[in-house]
Amino acid sequence: MSEAASQATLPRVLVAHGPNLNTLGNREPAIYGSMTLAEINRRLEARASELGCEVICFQSNHEGALIDFLQEHGPAARGLVINPGGLTHTSVSLRDAVAGSGLLAVEVHLSNIHAREPFRHRSLLAPVCRGQVIGLGWRGYLLALEAIMGLLGEA
Amino acid sequence: MSEAASQATLPRVLVAHGPNLNTLGNREPAIYGSMTLAEINRRLEARASELGCEVICFQSNHEGALIDFLQEHGPAARGLVINPGGLTHTSVSLRDAVAGSGLLAVEVHLSNIHAREPFRHRSLLAPVCRGQVIGLGWRGYLLALEAIMGLLGEA
Amino acid sequence: MSEAASQATLPRVLVAHGPNLNTLGNREPAIYGSMTLAEINRRLEARASELGCEVICFQSNHEGALIDFLQEHGPAARGLVINPGGLTHTSVSLRDAVAGSGLLAVEVHLSNIHAREPFRHRSLLAPVCRGQVIGLGWRGYLLALEAIMGLLGEA
Amino acid sequence: MSEAASQATLPRVLVAHGPNLNTLGNREPAIYGSMTLAEINRRLEARASELGCEVICFQSNHEGALIDFLQEHGPAARGLVINPGGLTHTSVSLRDAVAGSGLLAVEVHLSNIHAREPFRHRSLLAPVCRGQVIGLGWRGYLLALEAIMGLLGEA
Amino acid sequence: MSEAASQATLPRVLVAHGPNLNTLGNREPAIYGSMTLAEINRRLEARASELGCEVICFQSNHEGALIDFLQEHGPAARGLVINPGGLTHTSVSLRDAVAGSGLLAVEVHLSNIHAREPFRHRSLLAPVCRGQVIGLGWRGYLLALEAIMGLLGEA
Amino acid sequence: MSEAASQATLPRVLVAHGPNLNTLGNREPAIYGSMTLAEINRRLEARASELGCEVICFQSNHEGALIDFLQEHGPAARGLVINPGGLTHTSVSLRDAVAGSGLLAVEVHLSNIHAREPFRHRSLLAPVCRGQVIGLGWRGYLLALEAIMGLLGEA
Amino acid sequence: MSEAASQATLPRVLVAHGPNLNTLGNREPAIYGSMTLAEINRRLEARASELGCEVICFQSNHEGALIDFLQEHGPAARGLVINPGGLTHTSVSLRDAVAGSGLLAVEVHLSNIHAREPFRHRSLLAPVCRGQVIGLGWRGYLLALEAIMGLLGEA
Amino acid sequence: MSEAASQATLPRVLVAHGPNLNTLGNREPAIYGSMTLAEINRRLEARASELGCEVICFQSNHEGALIDFLQEHGPAARGLVINPGGLTHTSVSLRDAVAGSGLLAVEVHLSNIHAREPFRHRSLLAPVCRGQVIGLGWRGYLLALEAIMGLLGEA
Amino acid sequence: MSEAASQATLPRVLVAHGPNLNTLGNREPAIYGSMTLAEINRRLEARASELGCEVICFQSNHEGALIDFLQEHGPAARGLVINPGGLTHTSVSLRDAVAGSGLLAVEVHLSNIHAREPFRHRSLLAPVCRGQVIGLGWRGYLLALEAIMGLLGEA
Amino acid sequence: MSEAASQATLPRVLVAHGPNLNTLGNREPAIYGSMTLAEINRRLEARASELGCEVICFQSNHEGALIDFLQEHGPAARGLVINPGGLTHTSVSLRDAVAGSGLLAVEVHLSNIHAREPFRHRSLLAPVCRGQVIGLGWRGYLLALEAIMGLLGEA
Amino acid sequence: MSEAASQATLPRVLVAHGPNLNTLGNREPAIYGSMTLAEINRRLEARASELGCEVICFQSNHEGALIDFLQEHGPAARGLVINPGGLTHTSVSLRDAVAGSGLLAVEVHLSNIHAREPFRHRSLLAPVCRGQVIGLGWRGYLLALEAIMGLLGEA
Amino acid sequence: MSEAASQATLPRVLVAHGPNLNTLGNREPAIYGSMTLAEINRRLEARASELGCEVICFQSNHEGALIDFLQEHGPAARGLVINPGGLTHTSVSLRDAVAGSGLLAVEVHLSNIHAREPFRHRSLLAPVCRGQVIGLGWRGYLLALEAIMGLLGEA
Repeated sequence: MSEAASQATLPRVLVAHGPNLNTLGNREPAIYGSMTLAEINRRLEARASELGCEVICFQSNHEGALIDFLQEHGPAARGLVINPGGLTHTSVSLRDAVAGSGLLAVEVHLSNIHAREPFRHRSLLAPVCRGQVIGLGWRGYLLALEAIMGLLGEA
Repeated sequence: MSEAASQATLPRVLVAHGPNLNTLGNREPAIYGSMTLAEINRRLEARASELGCEVICFQSNHEGALIDFLQEHGPAARGLVINPGGLTHTSVSLRDAVAGSGLLAVEVHLSNIHAREPFRHRSLLAPVCRGQVIGLGWRGYLLALEAIMGLLGEA
Repeated sequence: MSEAASQATLPRVLVAHGPNLNTLGNREPAIYGSMTLAEINRRLEARASELGCEVICFQSNHEGALIDFLQEHGPAARGLVINPGGLTHTSVSLRDAVAGSGLLAVEVHLSNIHAREPFRHRSLLAPVCRGQVIGLGWRGYLLALEAIMGLLGEA
Repeated sequence: MSEAASQATLPRVLVAHGPNLNTLGNREPAIYGSMTLAEINRRLEARASELGCEVICFQSNHEGALIDFLQEHGPAARGLVINPGGLTHTSVSLRDAVAGSGLLAVEVHLSNIHAREPFRHRSLLAPVCRGQVIGLGWRGYLLALEAIMGLLGEA
Repeated sequence: MSEAASQATLPRVLVAHGPNLNTLGNREPAIYGSMTLAEINRRLEARASELGCEVICFQSNHEGALIDFLQEHGPAARGLVINPGGLTHTSVSLRDAVAGSGLLAVEVHLSNIHAREPFRHRSLLAPVCRGQVIGLGWRGYLLALEAIMGLLGEA
Repeated sequence: MSEAASQATLPRVLVAHGPNLNTLGNREPAIYGSMTLAEINRRLEARASELGCEVICFQSNHEGALIDFLQEHGPAARGLVINPGGLTHTSVSLRDAVAGSGLLAVEVHLSNIHAREPFRHRSLLAPVCRGQVIGLGWRGYLLALEAIMGLLGEA
Repeated sequence: MSEAASQATLPRVLVAHGPNLNTLGNREPAIYGSMTLAEINRRLEARASELGCEVICFQSNHEGALIDFLQEHGPAARGLVINPGGLTHTSVSLRDAVAGSGLLAVEVHLSNIHAREPFRHRSLLAPVCRGQVIGLGWRGYLLALEAIMGLLGEA
Repeated sequence: MSEAASQATLPRVLVAHGPNLNTLGNREPAIYGSMTLAEINRRLEARASELGCEVICFQSNHEGALIDFLQEHGPAARGLVINPGGLTHTSVSLRDAVAGSGLLAVEVHLSNIHAREPFRHRSLLAPVCRGQVIGLGWRGYLLALEAIMGLLGEA
Repeated sequence: MSEAASQATLPRVLVAHGPNLNTLGNREPAIYGSMTLAEINRRLEARASELGCEVICFQSNHEGALIDFLQEHGPAARGLVINPGGLTHTSVSLRDAVAGSGLLAVEVHLSNIHAREPFRHRSLLAPVCRGQVIGLGWRGYLLALEAIMGLLGEA
Repeated sequence: MSEAASQATLPRVLVAHGPNLNTLGNREPAIYGSMTLAEINRRLEARASELGCEVICFQSNHEGALIDFLQEHGPAARGLVINPGGLTHTSVSLRDAVAGSGLLAVEVHLSNIHAREPFRHRSLLAPVCRGQVIGLGWRGYLLALEAIMGLLGEA
Repeated sequence: MSEAASQATLPRVLVAHGPNLNTLGNREPAIYGSMTLAEINRRLEARASELGCEVICFQSNHEGALIDFLQEHGPAARGLVINPGGLTHTSVSLRDAVAGSGLLAVEVHLSNIHAREPFRHRSLLAPVCRGQVIGLGWRGYLLALEAIMGLLGEA
Repeated sequence: MSEAASQATLPRVLVAHGPNLNTLGNREPAIYGSMTLAEINRRLEARASELGCEVICFQSNHEGALIDFLQEHGPAARGLVINPGGLTHTSVSLRDAVAGSGLLAVEVHLSNIHAREPFRHRSLLAPVCRGQVIGLGWRGYLLALEAIMGLLGEA
C-alpha cells in the first residue's frame, strides 16, 4: 500500500508499556489517572502524525516479551518512549536491552515515583535513557515523544 | 450445568503458585516437604468445598503469566492465596498486580523464610497483603483459605 | 480429680501474650481489632478442646515474666503460640528463651507488621519459631494452634 | 497599560533557576548544552504567550533569594517551573518554600542527573513537586510549562 | 535615652528564625500553627520583660544573613533561641557559627520533627546547643527563653 | 475527704521516670546534675499546684512496671511527662503503651542526648509524643508540664 | 538412529543463555565481543564432542522460559553452563531452579562484571554454582565445559 | 557472727547473671556447656575465698531486677562480673546502671559470641566495662574474678 | 595607573574564604589558630608578590556570594585557593561553580578535618580540585599558592 | 644453554600464590582440595609447555614479597595467574602492583568465595584483572593459563 | 639434653604478638600499660611452667612472618595465644592461618578495643578463635594461657 | 666526619614511601607523574639542606618494614613525611606505628585520592597525622617538609 510505503520513510518511535499498564483507567485511578491505555496510545498516534513520525505501541506483563519487542523493532526505529512499570526498579535485563538497542530513549512514569515508597525511587533504566518525564500523567507520554523528535532533529 | 451455575454464586478465591512450586515433592524435600503441588491443590479444593467457596489454582514459572492470571480472574474473585516463590523478594510488578486487583490476599510460604538467607527475609508483597502464613508447610495454604473466608464473612 | 488427670494426658500448648496485649479491644481498635484478650483466650480454649489439647494462656507487660513463664511451663508442654508484642523487635532474651524451650513455636501478630513502621518489620523471634501467622486478627491465634496440633501429629 | 491589565488576568507561572544556571552556554556545554539562559527565558516567554499564560523568570546563586522570590511572587501565581541546580540535592529550605507556596510545581534538569555522580541522584524537591522533566536539555523547560498549563486546565 | 541605657545592662538573648518562618500563620497551619512570627516575637518580648532580659529577634531566608547576625550580635549577648528551619538538617556553617559564638543556645522546632520525614530527624545544630524544645508550637520559644534565663542564673 | 474530692476534678498529668533515674544526684552528676529525683518530683508538684493540675509521679527500673503504670493511671489522666531513660532507645513496648494511652505526652531528657553516643540519638518514643524537651536539666520537667497544660487549655 | 542412541549414553551438559545474549556480535561489541551466539554454541558442541559429552543449548529473554528449560532437561543431565545475563543480579527464582536441579553448575560471564557498575558485582546465582568463569569472553564457555567434565570424572 | 564481721572487711565483687542463665546445664549444652549455674556460683565462691574476696551472686530474667541489684549492692562493692545474656545486645538501661555504679566490671560470655549470629557481635555494655572474657565457658567467670582482684590490687 | 597595568599582566589567583573564617583569631583558637584572616591575606599577598602573581582575596558567609565571586573573577584568573569552611561538606552549588570556573583549584583547611567529626570527613569540592592542603594552619594557604604557581608554570 | 635460550623467546606468564597456599593439601582439604602446591605448579609447567609458554611460579605469605615479585618479573612477562589468598579482600597495594604491571591478569580461587563468608565476596583485585576463575579447584589454574594464552594470541 | 627431651613431652602453646607490640612499655602507656613485652613473655613462661606446658613466644611487625611462624610451629603445638595488634581488624590471611593451624586459639587485647575507635571493634580473627580476653592488660595473656590448658585438659 | 657530626645536630625528618612508589616514573605516569622516586628524594634532600634539617628517606613494599623503619628511626627524629601508598586505606598497624612514634607527621599523596575510586577516599592514617597534602604531585613532598619545619619552629 502506498500509505505504508510512505510511512516507512517516517522516523519510527517505539512505545513500550510494562506490567499492569494494560489496566490503566481501572486500577487505582487516584494514583494513575482514569484514562485507558488504548486512549493514551491513540493520542500518541495522533501526536506522532502531527510531528511527522510513526509510533509502534506495545504492552506486556512479561519482561521477556518487552525485551523481544525491543530486539525485534529496535533496529528499524530511532526513538523509544518507555514506561517500564514495576520493572523500572528491578530489571537489569530490560536496562541492557534498552542500552543495547542504541535508541534515543525517554523513560515515562504516570505518577511521581519520588513521592511514593522508597523502593520506587531508584530506576535501573534511568542511566541508559536520555531523560525522564515523571508524574505528569498521560501528558508525559506526549511530552516524551515531542522531546525525542526535537532531539532527533538536532542530531 | 446446574452445579456450575450454583458454583458461580459461591465466592471465588484465587490460588497462585510462583516459580519452581510445580516441582514440589521432588525439590529439596527437607526444606519444602514431600507433598506435590497437585495434592496441595486437591486439599485446597476439598477445604473450599467445606467452607462454601470455589478455588482456582494456577502455577507458573513466568512472572508475566502470574500477572495475566490475576488480571484475568481477579475481577470475578474476592480472595487470593499467593505463594510467590522466588518472586516474593524481587517482583514489584507482581506486587502492583496484587494491589491493583483489590483482592483480600494472604501470602503463604512453605518454609520459614526468616530462618533462611537474608535476601529471603523481605517480601515485596507483604505490605499489600492482609497477612502472611509462613513456615507451616502445606497446612499454611489451608489456614490462609480459612482466614480469607472468615474475614470475608466479617466485612 | 479425674478431669485433671485426664487433662494431664492431653498435649499442652502454651499461649504467651506480650506487652500491651491486655488492653486489646480498647487500644487503637482500627489496628488491633475490637475483641478483648479474654475473649481470644476463651476461643483458644474452645478450639483446644476440639483439637484435643490443653492451652495455658499468659500475658505480661514484663519481658522477664514471659521468660519465667516459658521456663516454668515449657518442660511440660509441647507447643507455643506467642505474640510478643513490642518485644518482637527488641528482645534477644525472649528469643533465647523460646529457642531454649525446645517447643514447636508459632509467632502470631494481629496486625500486618510488614505494612507498618520499618522497625516493626524485623522479628528477632522469627528464626527460632517454626512459622508465623501475621495480619489475620484474632483468627491468627486459632490458626496457629491448629497448625501446631497438625505438626505435632506428624512428628 | 491595557496590555498589562489584560496580562494580569492570565494565569502566572514562575520560573526559578538556581545557582550557576546564569552561566549556561559557557559552562561545560558538553553537559549543559550551548544555549544561554537568556535564550531559554525568551523561548519560555514565547511559549507562554502561545499557551495563554505569563511567566516570571528569576535566577540567583543565593538559596535565600530563591526562597524570597517564591514567597513574594507565589501568592499571585499558579504554577512553578524550577531547576534548583546544585540546591536540588541539599536544600531542605527550598523544598519547604516550594511546598509552602502551594504551587503546581515541575522540577527540571538539563542533564540526566541519574547518569551522573551518585550524590546527584536524589532530589530533595522531587516529593513536593508534581513531577520532573530530566535530561532533555532546554526543551525540558518548555515541556514543563506545557504540562503545567494542561494540568491547571484540568483541575 | 535612659530606658535604652538601663536596658543595656540587662542580659541579652538572641532569637534567630531560619528560612520560611516569616510565613508562619499562612504556611501549612496544620503543621506549623496559625500564629504569625510577629506575634511570636511580641510574646517573646513580653516574656523577656518579665524575666528581666532583652531579646533581639531576627529572621532570614539566607543562611549567610543568619551567620552575619550571630557574628554581629553574639559578642554582646549571652543566650540564643534558634529555630533554624530547613537549615537544621543541612547547614554545617550555621552550626559552626553557633558553636563559635559561645552562646548558651537552645534549638526550637514548632513541629515534632521526629514524627515527620526521616531527613528531618537529624539536626546538625543539636550537638552544639545546650538543649532542644521540639513539637510544642509557639510555646516552645517561651520555654526556651525561660530555660536560658534559668541556666544563666545558675552559672 | 473534701481535698481529694476537689483534686479529683483537677486535670491529672502522669510523670514517668525510667531506669536509673532513681539514682539522680549521685550518678554521674557532671552529666545528669546534682538534684535528686525526690526534689524534682517535689518541684513538679509545686508547679502543678500553681498550674491547677495534679501530678502522679512514678519511677521504675522495670519496663513492664512503667507500662503497668501507664495502663493503670492513663485512663484517668490527660497528660504525660516521660523520661524513659535508657528505654528511650530500645523499647517498642513502652512506645506502644504511650501511643495506646492517648495521652498528650512530652518526652524529657536531662542531658543533651544528641551530644552523646550515637545510639542515644534516636528515640523510639519521640514520634508518638507531642514534643520533646532535651538537655535543659531538671527545668525540662517543669517546662514540659507547663507546655502540656497550655496545650490542653487550647484543645 | 544409532548415532542418537549412542549419544543418549553420553553425559549431558545443559547450556543456558539469559536475556539479550541472542544479540551477541551486534550489541556493544567493545564489551561483549564480536562472536555470535550461534558460533559460541557451535564451538561448545565441537568441544563437547572432543570431551565425550553432549550439550543442549538454550537462550531466552524470559526468566520463566529458562526455569522451564532447567526443569524439563535437568533430570536427564549432569552439568550446567549458565550465563544468566541481567538475571544474574535479580532472579531468586532462577537461583532456586539451579539449586533445585542438583546439577553441577558453572556460571559464565563474557565481560568482567566486577569492573562494571556496582549492581553487577553481586550474583544471586554464584552461591549455588560450583564456580564462575568471568571476563574471559567466549573462551569462558569452553573452559566451564572443560571444568565440568573434569569434575564429573572425579566424583 | 565474727565470721560475717571479718568478711565484711573483704573486698566485695558482684556477680550478675542475665536472662536464661538459670537454665544452664539443660539449655543447649552444645553451646553453653553442661555445668549448672549453681555449680558455677559455687566455684566462684571457692575461688573468691582463695583470692581473699567475697562474691554476691544474682540471676534474674528481669532487666529491671538486675538494675535494682546493681543499685542496691553496688555502693558496697568494688568489682562486677556480669554475663548479661540476651540483654548484652539490647539494654541501654543495664549499660547505664553498670556505668553509674562505678564498679570495675568485666563482661563474661560462655560462648564465643563473635562466632554466632551477627546481632550477637555487638555488646552495648562492652564500652563501659574494663574488659571481656568470651567463649571460654565456665572458666571465664573465674578468670574474670581473678582479673578484677589483680586490677583492684594495682589501683 | 601604570602599576595596575603591569599587575594586569601577572597571573591572577583567587582566594576564597567561606563562612565563619572572618572570625579567625577569636573563634576556637585551639582548633583554628590565633592568626586573623587579615593577617593571612596579608601574608598571601606578600608571598604572591615573591612568586610573581596577584591574589584577590574574598570572604563571605553567603554561599551565593562566593559563587558570584567565582563567576565574576574566574574568567580573568588562572588559579584558586579555596577554604570553603562549613560549605565544604554541604554545597553542591559551590562545587559546581568551582568546576565550572575551570580554574586550577587547591582546597585548604586550617584544621585536620579527618581528625574531627565524621560529617567533616567528606568534601564535596575535593573531586573538582587539583588537590588539598589540610591541617597545616595558616601555612596551608601559602603552600597552596606555591603549588598553584608551580603547576601553572608546568602546564 | 640452548634450552634456556630457546625458552627465553617463549611468552612468559607469572603465577603468584598468596598467603597460606603453601599449605595446600594439608589445610582444610574439604575446602581447598588435597593436591599440594608443588603438584599444581608441576601441572602448570606441563600445560605451559603444551601451550608454548613459560611459567614462573612464586608463593609467599608476605604481601610485600608478592609485590616485589611482580615488580621484578613483570617487565619481562606478558600474563599473570594470581591467587591472592586472603590478600584478595584486603590489599590495595597488591592491586596497585597488578594494575601497574600492565600484565594480562586472571584471578584464581580454589573454592567458591561467593558461597563462603560475606567478607570473602569482594575482591579488590577483580577490577584490575581481565577475569576470574573461581571455585573449580586446581583446574582453575590451568584454565586461567589457557585463557591467557588464547587472549594473548588474539591481541 | 634430658631437659629438652622431657620438655618435648609437654604440651606446647604458641604466643604470637603482632605489629607494634615490641614497643610495649614505651608506646602510649596510658592505653597499653607500662610493662615491656619481654616481661610479659617472662611471666608467660613462668606460668607455663606452673601449668605444665611450654610456650614459644614470637613478635613481628610483618603479617607474613606471623603466618610463617604459625605454619612452622603449629603442627607441633596444641594451643595459641594471639594478640594480632593492628592486624586484628584487617588481616584475612592471618585469620586463615589461625583457622588452618587447627590450634585451640585465644585472642588477647591489652586495651578494651570496644571502648576505642569503631574500626577497632570488629576482629576478623574472633570467629576462628575459641574465645577472647580483652582489656585486662598483661594479665589477659596469663588468663588466656590458663584457659587453654584447662580446655585442653577437658578434651 | 665532621660533616656528619654537624648534621647530627640538625632536626631530622623521616620520609617514608609505601608500596609501589619505587616504580614512580614508569607506572601509570598519567596518574602519578613522570618523576622517579630517586629524583624526589634528591629534591627533598636539597630542600632539607635549605631548611636546615636532615631527611632520611625509605621505601618498602612491606608494611612490616615500614613499621620497623619508624620504630628504629623515630626516636631520633622529630617529623615524618609519609606517603603510605595502598596501605593508606588498609593498615591499622602502620597507623598505630605513626601514632606511637609521636612524630609530627604529614601524609602526602601524589594524586588526588578523592577524585579516584571510593575505597581510596578514606585514609586510616589521616586522623593521626597533623595534616595532609594531596594531589599536588612531587611538590607535595616539599610542601609537607616545609610545613613540618615551620610547625616545629613554632612549638
